[in-house]
Amino acid sequence: MARQERAIRTRRTILEAAAAVFDERGYTSATIGEILQRAGVTKGALYFHFGSKEELALGVFEEQLAISLPPQASKLQELVDSGLVLARRLREEPLVRASVGLALDQGALGLDRTPAFRMWIDQTARTLAEAKARGELLPHVEETETAELLVASFSGVQLLSQLRCQREDLERRVVVLFDHLLPGIAVPAVLARLDISAERAGRILAESRLEAVAG
Amino acid sequence: MARQERAIRTRRTILEAAAAVFDERGYTSATIGEILQRAGVTKGALYFHFGSKEELALGVFEEQLAISLPPQASKLQELVDSGLVLARRLREEPLVRASVGLALDQGALGLDRTPAFRMWIDQTARTLAEAKARGELLPHVEETETAELLVASFSGVQLLSQLRCQREDLERRVVVLFDHLLPGIAVPAVLARLDISAERAGRILAESRLEAVAG
Repeated sequence: MARQERAIRTRRTILEAAAAVFDERGYTSATIGEILQRAGVTKGALYFHFGSKEELALGVFEEQLAISLPPQASKLQELVDSGLVLARRLREEPLVRASVGLALDQGALGLDRTPAFRMWIDQTARTLAEAKARGELLPHVEETETAELLVASFSGVQLLSQLRCQREDLERRVVVLFDHLLPGIAVPAVLARLDISAERAGRILAESRLEAVAG
Repeated sequence: MARQERAIRTRRTILEAAAAVFDERGYTSATIGEILQRAGVTKGALYFHFGSKEELALGVFEEQLAISLPPQASKLQELVDSGLVLARRLREEPLVRASVGLALDQGALGLDRTPAFRMWIDQTARTLAEAKARGELLPHVEETETAELLVASFSGVQLLSQLRCQREDLERRVVVLFDHLLPGIAVPAVLARLDISAERAGRILAESRLEAVAG
């Protein structure tokens, strides 16, 4: 295994361990010692990748967004896909769950939680700006404002879904969110062609994993 | 002062004290003893109104919704008004802030937080059902689904606003929420007549307080 590949794997192992410990114990109670033990790496290896507990949290935040999905006919379809896929990953991947948990953890003392939202909002705003450039958006739409609303609404929807049924119905709720929000931002011709369905999440995610393997 | 009026005032004093203690210490750490001390009432008075810490939390939840606003030309305008007024009260009233804080407090051990959402969702769904009966909604709208989405999105929007600027921009963000959601549910003739502006919150709240005094 090449050195670079090994470093990437070690980084991922550390992030997964950190995510699990943050998820179980909360950010405030989690210690670097516990994360080292869980990851089975040396202190030197951890500090090579991450300088502090806060940097570990930032790494967990970033990992949530580090996925590339197959391109679609419209940028709004790509926006829908990224929401549906995030819903699915929240149910399946502890690291993604920990990332959202951290961003919403009001008891996370000393942790600046704004980067988690900022990264996610920036990514959403970039997709909306591309959609706008292609004429997919209604003329009044302001991409940062809409991106902030989408990220906030998604966060609230996942909170309610978590409270009600441990996120079992999250994809369905995200479909309801897009069904309500998109008529307010999409031009009719694009809106009519969007595929917004809970089943789509699994399909898109499988495609993106195949691509990553073939990559 | 009549006995009933005194009881209502005592109940309110206790709820305000409970809200303040929940807000400052978190639900799990808060004790009945602290709430008694803050309220300046006897143990007997408190237990006359509330049987347990959980019942106090329920009382705080209910208080958030216990406000009647002036009737408007459309039920959707009343829905908008209740959202704008809640945003304003969240900034101004510690009791309302504590109520929402409790509902979103993932660390509130032993507290069933679903009633907080259920009461709020039920109230929203009732308003939407009335709007539907009057022909204000697009035919596909299902009132419970939309009510759940509205409550979840509002919760997420207030979380982001709290994180960013201690809710200073909350009314503006709630305006953005309604601007995006209403085109997906309102018939055009009603949509065109809605007044969705941040300034409206203070005006409606002042009117409702005048009415309560004139009672």
